[in-house]
Amino acid sequence: MTSKIIFDTDPGIDDAMAILYAHGHPNIDLTAITTVYGNATIDNATRNACYLNERFNIGATIAKGAEGPLERDPVGPTVIVHGEEGMGTVLAPQDQAVDIDARPAYQYICERVRAEPGEITLVAVGPLTNLALALKHDPEITKLVKQVVIMGAAFGGDGRRGNVSPVAEANIHDDPHAADQVFTADWPVAIVGLDVTHQTFFSDTYLDELRESAGEAGEFIWQVSRYYLDFYSRKLGLQGCHVHDPSAVAYAANPEWFTTRLGPVRVVTDGPAAGMTIQKTEPGRFHHDGWSDYREQQVCVEVDSDAILDDYRRVIIGLSG
Amino acid sequence: MTSKIIFDTDPGIDDAMAILYAHGHPNIDLTAITTVYGNATIDNATRNACYLNERFNIGATIAKGAEGPLERDPVGPTVIVHGEEGMGTVLAPQDQAVDIDARPAYQYICERVRAEPGEITLVAVGPLTNLALALKHDPEITKLVKQVVIMGAAFGGDGRRGNVSPVAEANIHDDPHAADQVFTADWPVAIVGLDVTHQTFFSDTYLDELRESAGEAGEFIWQVSRYYLDFYSRKLGLQGCHVHDPSAVAYAANPEWFTTRLGPVRVVTDGPAAGMTIQKTEPGRFHHDGWSDYREQQVCVEVDSDAILDDYRRVIIGLSG
Repeated sequence: MTSKIIFDTDPGIDDAMAILYAHGHPNIDLTAITTVYGNATIDNATRNACYLNERFNIGATIAKGAEGPLERDPVGPTVIVHGEEGMGTVLAPQDQAVDIDARPAYQYICERVRAEPGEITLVAVGPLTNLALALKHDPEITKLVKQVVIMGAAFGGDGRRGNVSPVAEANIHDDPHAADQVFTADWPVAIVGLDVTHQTFFSDTYLDELRESAGEAGEFIWQVSRYYLDFYSRKLGLQGCHVHDPSAVAYAANPEWFTTRLGPVRVVTDGPAAGMTIQKTEPGRFHHDGWSDYREQQVCVEVDSDAILDDYRRVIIGLSG
Repeated sequence: MTSKIIFDTDPGIDDAMAILYAHGHPNIDLTAITTVYGNATIDNATRNACYLNERFNIGATIAKGAEGPLERDPVGPTVIVHGEEGMGTVLAPQDQAVDIDARPAYQYICERVRAEPGEITLVAVGPLTNLALALKHDPEITKLVKQVVIMGAAFGGDGRRGNVSPVAEANIHDDPHAADQVFTADWPVAIVGLDVTHQTFFSDTYLDELRESAGEAGEFIWQVSRYYLDFYSRKLGLQGCHVHDPSAVAYAANPEWFTTRLGPVRVVTDGPAAGMTIQKTEPGRFHHDGWSDYREQQVCVEVDSDAILDDYRRVIIGLSG
């Protein structure tokens, strides 16, 4: 079955890897890309999305989204991980045509969802600001969206609670208020967080082989990953990178590869733990309980990593076929 | 070696059990009791402390402390667990003499610590408001206190993250701002939280045997525990109770019975997770890191429960000897 998705993204190196995966995937119809600040500024993220859309003939509608978080002070782009403009050493031309929809991302999302009730899956791999703004603009979309798939958050699986802080993952840390609104809304959310994205690894060798076998897309993924791998090598001592954003695409295409745990999810919005995500898994209602009144969401806790690695290779090779 | 302690407490059923334990313990000199709201109102907690001090010839100085938290809205006494006045069905006489020091608890703590530098251990088993006020009143006490032992908090050991909320223990939930100040101050704190207090259990039978063998103190502990055990039976389905506050006394007397884990500790102060305690155990400094600049504190993660149960029985029997 094909999922029609709107991909909300801040490209972003692994975002670019995920966009090509979604574009080539037989189970996915990548109908639109909405952009958001995060890994890069909103202008760089939007230009990068337009560049990818044009270079790889993706044909997605692109709508420009939020330039900063709902309430918190902006954290700023993650230059150390994604480079000055968001795609490492790959720079979109300065005269890149920015051919975008006239509507802001949140409005575009609401109107597309209204137009195709029950059909659209939102896959969001950046800060959740656009989705929170969409919920505010038209709360009834919760009943009209097919599913929401998020790359973000961390729930302590394997002892891992965060990456940008001891207890917060970058996308949620960038806009914790938006994330809390998205997770507590009455729509079905699946959260693909560090608990699973750290289980899947693009090794140096895997990316070299992809370059050799997968034509222009493989070459591009290899090029765009150089800066990212340099960060992983210098800062984390790893020869390769975790598979963050492509894992959300994998969930949208093949949810059966993931084991999920059900329970309501809240986000710490302020203080040193801002961006921490907490799923209530304890039975019963507590005397003070900010969870139990909210919908139970799916948190991914295990993944078939080999299946993702095989599928990703197959799909990217298919792009050049 | 004998520890000279100021016991900061909100009696409270398990507080009363702990006071008798500290009073009778050969390793402890219970020199003063400072009171705080929490399990009971400040007036009931103070009257109960005076009642115990008089009835069991404890001879401690008593100083009255805070009536409510630093910043948050007061949660109110835990009547469902500790009864209307704090000691279950045991009511201190309405004409109980309330013979207290003229100074508020925080001032008393500061002046005693100044008078005996390096000698005083603060054992706090209620909300940490008095200790936070003492830190504000005289920040240099951090250098003059021997040690701070806290009953409170929960760190997810055995999956247990809270009791009054899914992620908060009652004492910390009552005043999360105070707790964050106490844990981040530059003094040595040992935290005896639910991770270990749930490992030690006063069974129905244990308390019955104590009643038979330990004279007036044993009879009192049996009486005061009736209301508490009724709560445990009705709400938790347990025949007996966890050993919360006496475990902090056990730590002050015999720290070698506890295994601890070192790392800085912060408290979530607002939102649904208010009162959640988070120890940083991850190596290195994160890009956003509200922990690493603070002192590493001891969090108890394992305990020799049999040693505590034997010691408690021996000490309480000794009181009637």
